Amino acid sequence: MPAPLTTYQTLILPEWTDYNGHLRDAFYLLVFSYATDALMDHLGLDSAHREASGHSLFTLECHLNYLHEVRQGSRVQVRTQLLGHDHKRLHLYHSLHLGAAAQSLAASEQLLLHVALGGADGARSAAFSGEVARRIEALGNAHRHLPRPAWTGRVIGLPA
Amino acid sequence: MPAPLTTYQTLILPEWTDYNGHLRDAFYLLVFSYATDALMDHLGLDSAHREASGHSLFTLECHLNYLHEVRQGSRVQVRTQLLGHDHKRLHLYHSLHLGAAAQSLAASEQLLLHVALGGADGARSAAFSGEVARRIEALGNAHRHLPRPAWTGRVIGLPA
Repeated sequence: MPAPLTTYQTLILPEWTDYNGHLRDAFYLLVFSYATDALMDHLGLDSAHREASGHSLFTLECHLNYLHEVRQGSRVQVRTQLLGHDHKRLHLYHSLHLGAAAQSLAASEQLLLHVALGGADGARSAAFSGEVARRIEALGNAHRHLPRPAWTGRVIGLPA
Repeated sequence: MPAPLTTYQTLILPEWTDYNGHLRDAFYLLVFSYATDALMDHLGLDSAHREASGHSLFTLECHLNYLHEVRQGSRVQVRTQLLGHDHKRLHLYHSLHLGAAAQSLAASEQLLLHVALGGADGARSAAFSGEVARRIEALGNAHRHLPRPAWTGRVIGLPA
């Protein structure tokens, strides 16, 4: 039975919270950012690979939905689903949960680009290759038949 | 001539950067989050108001586009445009710039909800009132004829 990957677990730290002891908006994204790091490790895009190959991932775009407040000291986990990929991009979905609970506290849809670092004019997009490409393909196949999460395809706006 | 508000200025701190000395994705949002705090002060939704009234703003949804890397030590500013509002919601746009430069390093479209804090069942949405409602109306009028920024109305997806 395929399922999203549990990519990251943490306690909600005091320095991530506001006057009221709740997780501040930017630190939801920090938790998701650590989950992306863990997914990169899972795909072979870890720091050793980065140093050896000069390749890494950049976040192009990120959407966040805040569904519930999260208190300092809560033990949370991030589950990650690969929604899609092409030869150089990953389309991800992270959801935040209290422990093993089903309810989402927050959700983030993200688009990431594979890049070759450090040319004279900065990073350039680059195709996935070798073992990394194989692992992405395997994860995509494993997640292909998962239900589409609710908080995707979002446009922000107020009724006119 | 109406213009977006310059809401926040900061140096990019070492603890916000990655292995490579560039601003990490979550800390772009932290800079925008501080800009939202500054906008709240501008609208009279400061901490004194929160303590006196029991009202504050919650972020419902946030979209971020990462357009350029930002190096540790850079002096950046956030400019903020009120795209829309209704009786209890603000639709904002933040852009990040190197000093007074026109080029955007990143952009964020956000939807925020005005809430009454701390009932038995948590926060509930609440209408803006009094001086806060008047200041929102004034800012909305000042920003009504600004051009629509490029990085709004975004949907994430890969071509099928």
